[in-house]
This record gives sequence, structure tokens and C-alpha cells, in this order.
Amino acid sequence: MEDAKEIVTVNVEDAKAVVTNTLQFDDKLIKIRDYAKINNVPIIKDDGMVFLKMLIDIKKPINILEIGTAIGYSSIMMAKDSNCNIYTIERDEKMYNEALKNINECKLNDRINVIFKDALEAFDDVKNIKFDLIFIDAAKAQYTKFFEIYTKLLNKDGMVVCDNMLFHGLVNDTNYENMSRSLRGLVRKLKNFHEYLLNNESYNSTIYDIGDGMAVSILK
Amino acid sequence: MEDAKEIVTVNVEDAKAVVTNTLQFDDKLIKIRDYAKINNVPIIKDDGMVFLKMLIDIKKPINILEIGTAIGYSSIMMAKDSNCNIYTIERDEKMYNEALKNINECKLNDRINVIFKDALEAFDDVKNIKFDLIFIDAAKAQYTKFFEIYTKLLNKDGMVVCDNMLFHGLVNDTNYENMSRSLRGLVRKLKNFHEYLLNNESYNSTIYDIGDGMAVSILK
Repeated sequence: MEDAKEIVTVNVEDAKAVVTNTLQFDDKLIKIRDYAKINNVPIIKDDGMVFLKMLIDIKKPINILEIGTAIGYSSIMMAKDSNCNIYTIERDEKMYNEALKNINECKLNDRINVIFKDALEAFDDVKNIKFDLIFIDAAKAQYTKFFEIYTKLLNKDGMVVCDNMLFHGLVNDTNYENMSRSLRGLVRKLKNFHEYLLNNESYNSTIYDIGDGMAVSILK
Repeated sequence: MEDAKEIVTVNVEDAKAVVTNTLQFDDKLIKIRDYAKINNVPIIKDDGMVFLKMLIDIKKPINILEIGTAIGYSSIMMAKDSNCNIYTIERDEKMYNEALKNINECKLNDRINVIFKDALEAFDDVKNIKFDLIFIDAAKAQYTKFFEIYTKLLNKDGMVVCDNMLFHGLVNDTNYENMSRSLRGLVRKLKNFHEYLLNNESYNSTIYDIGDGMAVSILK
């Protein structure tokens, strides 16, 4: 990962909160980002990535659990410039295979372990590991369940980061009439997760308007 | 500090990036905030405080150096709910005395040490201490000097947080004609500090539109 060829500056238009920082992408990462764009794979926004990398830089986690690998972009970005081991769960076979390919190409297969399962059923695969950071970026309807299942494996002083908390602004949108029934259901579930998180007295949680809305929850 | 009587919710109007979190203030802290308001003492904004407290919560610093005590509000907030020792520097005598009074009233004088000096001349007072976090919130014209002087005392993996990086938005304002000469000078100095920080390869720095613009710089 040493051969960074391009420095991509975070676009301030997109980023309400991150004013200045740079993310470095080498050819392989640029290819992964291009694939995501062409194939409509939702990957973490640049400002969200800057924020997450800062949190990792401060926390220096040893073991990270990621719910929602997609094509491996955020795993690769988290593993790059750090020493952490990542366990990441993906249920979609096409995504899983693409992630494996990308992680191998970036030579990070010794530190990133991709588990091909529905995250609701992968607890046994990781139950003997203690995590310093859990990153949830998967099916939004299941956030509360993911949180409840996997935070059992959180180390003392561990933390959880959840992306998509604002869901393109829809969580704060009161204009329900314009939403389809399934979208309305999803928004309601995310709102419930907000409540759940902010009322969970075992954690100090803050939601930031960074990325697609990122929640940081620190175990008290 | 156990008797929090009021929960002040961060005002989202003010806070571009912090969507949800609460800060707890007891009677003494409410008095300090009221004093600041009445006497035009600039104290850290609520969203900036939420962000700073999150960083402390993740980092768990042992020793914190603060440049710019003012009336002790941020020192008290940082010391509250944590175990850190704080060394804080203030050159204004009235502020210094008010800070001492407030810190005593909050019974935090065993963990907060206020140094009555110009920060440009206080290096010898702290030169034998290693800091995990340096928080700069003082005379904006001197940020580069403060950074250069005191980061010598930063521990491995230490970090620096600077408030007022956007200076009420003036740093990104190109309408110089409406600024007085001294204000223009100050904005230019802050812009130079931005450049200095982002080009300083010993640190990973990100500037956030939180508080009055907060920079987080992590020693590589």
C-alpha cells in the first residue's frame, strides 16, 4: 500500500463537517472506488472515511469487527496505515467474492478475514474474539439487533461506530407522504435505533452529520 | 460533580456536525456559563465541547495541557467524568482568579493546575511533563508558536486539538474589504496556521466544522 499515486482531497461540498483532510488512494483503491460507482455499490463517503480513520488513529484498535463488507473498501481503508486485524461479515455472494479479490490484491488477506454469512447468524464465527471497535454499515433495518448481538464481544473501553444514521437526510424528514411504505418502515426502524442508542446508558453516544450520519458509541 | 441538575441538549441550529448528544451541567457549571455570557468571556461552543469530550473519552489521556484557561470552563468539563490531570495556562489576571475560584468550587483543584503566565513564556513550568493531549484555545495570532513550543512535550501517540480554526467563518471569507486591518491580519495568521498544520508531515490533521472550527492533529 506504499505506492499511493493520487491524493484525493475530500470534497467540501459533500462534507458538512470535515473541512480539510486528504485521503490517499493508490491504483488498486481507485479501481475499487470506480467499481463501486459503476455497479452502484454503496461505499462509505469520503468525509465519513476521514472521520473513521481519525477515530482508528486515536483508538488504535487491535481487533475490528465490521458488519457489512460490501466489496471490502472500508476494510481495506481501515487496515491501511494501521496494524489492526479485521473480521468483516457479508451475506451477498457476489460482494463477498469481489471483496476477497480486492483484499487479496491489496495484500491484506493476512489481516482482513471475510465471513460469508448473514450477520444475524455469524456470532459463533467470532464469539471467541474481543473487539476494540465494531463498525456497523449494513442492512439498516437490523441495526438494533446487530448492536445487541455483537456488543457482547466489545472490550472494556471499546467503541461502536454506525454509518447511515441519517440515511441521506431521510431520518430527519417529516414528509412521510412522499415515501414508499417500505422506505417509511426503514426510516422508522432507524429512528428507533437512534432512540435505542441515545437511551442506552451503558454507552456515551453522539451522532454526527458526517458521512451518511455517523454514530460513535463509547462503552462507559 | 455528581449532582447534575439540568441536561442541556446541544442546539442543532448551532451545530453543523453534532446532531445529537447531551451535556450535563450542575448548578456550578450553569453559574460559570452564565458568567461567561454576561461578561463576554468566549467559551468553547456546546458542539465543540461534545466533540472534545468524545475525543477524550476515546483517548483517555493522563495529562492534558490547555493553552488558554479563560474562566476554567473547558478545563472543568474535560476533568469531569475522567481521571486526567490538567495543566492550563492563562495570562489575564482577572480570568486566572475567576478560573481558580471556579475550579475550587467544583473541587477539581487537585487535578487542574492553573499557571498564571503568558503561554509563550510558560514552557519551563511544564517542561518535565509529557502530555497525551494538548488543547489550544487562546490568542489566535500565536497558534503556530504555541504548537511549535508545546508539541515538544507530546507523548508518543499524542494529539493536539485546536479550537477557533474557522474563526466564526472568517477564515473562509474572501470579503477582505469589510474587515479591519487587524482582523485581516488575524485571519491571515490563522490561514497560515491551517497551511502549517496540513503540511506538517509529523501529524495526521483534520479540520472539522464543529465548535468554532476544530483541528485534530495526531502524532504519527
